[in-house]
Amino acid sequence: MDLKERIRVIENFPKEGISFKDITTVIGDGEALKYSIDKMVEHLKDKNIDLIVGPEARGFIYGVPVAYAMGIGFVPVRKPGKLPGETVSITYDLEYGSDTLQIHKDAIKKGQRVAIVDDLLATGGTIDAVAKLVEMAGGEVICLDFAIELTGLRGRDKLEKYEVMSLVDYEF
Amino acid sequence: MDLKERIRVIENFPKEGISFKDITTVIGDGEALKYSIDKMVEHLKDKNIDLIVGPEARGFIYGVPVAYAMGIGFVPVRKPGKLPGETVSITYDLEYGSDTLQIHKDAIKKGQRVAIVDDLLATGGTIDAVAKLVEMAGGEVICLDFAIELTGLRGRDKLEKYEVMSLVDYEF
Repeated sequence: MDLKERIRVIENFPKEGISFKDITTVIGDGEALKYSIDKMVEHLKDKNIDLIVGPEARGFIYGVPVAYAMGIGFVPVRKPGKLPGETVSITYDLEYGSDTLQIHKDAIKKGQRVAIVDDLLATGGTIDAVAKLVEMAGGEVICLDFAIELTGLRGRDKLEKYEVMSLVDYEF
Repeated sequence: MDLKERIRVIENFPKEGISFKDITTVIGDGEALKYSIDKMVEHLKDKNIDLIVGPEARGFIYGVPVAYAMGIGFVPVRKPGKLPGETVSITYDLEYGSDTLQIHKDAIKKGQRVAIVDDLLATGGTIDAVAKLVEMAGGEVICLDFAIELTGLRGRDKLEKYEVMSLVDYEF
């Protein structure tokens, strides 16, 4: 399947100059959704992964079905105020300002092997923060799987200590 | 499996007097996640469902794996500013104030049979808005599937024109 053909590109969203890769046309199609998830599972299945971790909200879209298909658990990473239990937090820089993400402190057992799943690898800032959260919670980050990678933003450089896989590439 | 046993109840979250049902302990466990999704699929599989619709963010957690397991598509309902294409919107009342939700205008074909999936049925206000959005976009709402139902809040009364199914009940 040519997954790229199923992605809708919308120019100037959410702001002027951004060429937004809309995955709703992929996940809205049963075949393309199944193909995407199965490709990620194929990449992860021989790595002894214990848990899938994904950031809200689009990380849930890919991460939970991957976990379901592999028969393992899913751990959400969320913005502050959303997780009811005791959390570990990280604050990281964005282009303008900063953002904070949290994970439940008891969601990962020491040494568990984790794959992080998200829709998009851009500059890698968010995923680097998610990987650090997983490590703070005691997990070992084995690999990072994305639906889409914007190679021109060089997110892989920031994430060079991890194995990175993406289903579809764009330059920007 | 006794799914209720796997749900963590946290008192006074997000505010005093609320007994929060934490599903992260369910989805973080591979067996309990698989059991929950398979139960929803079992309920939906003979109803000729064309699409699963779920509201952000916890609706994605249950809705996407259900769609994946059924080999059909998933359509997200999101807060304003998140969907890049042309949208249909609905504004509905909350206990204090109001909220707006959106769906892509072209995400549902006229007459498609839709199941709405979410984590929690409380008063039913959000899901009633989601069902109306699906109808505004041209879909037919066949049923509503939830992980948890708070029966004391009588959400079913508000949703009486739809078939409602939940995996686990609490009074409040």
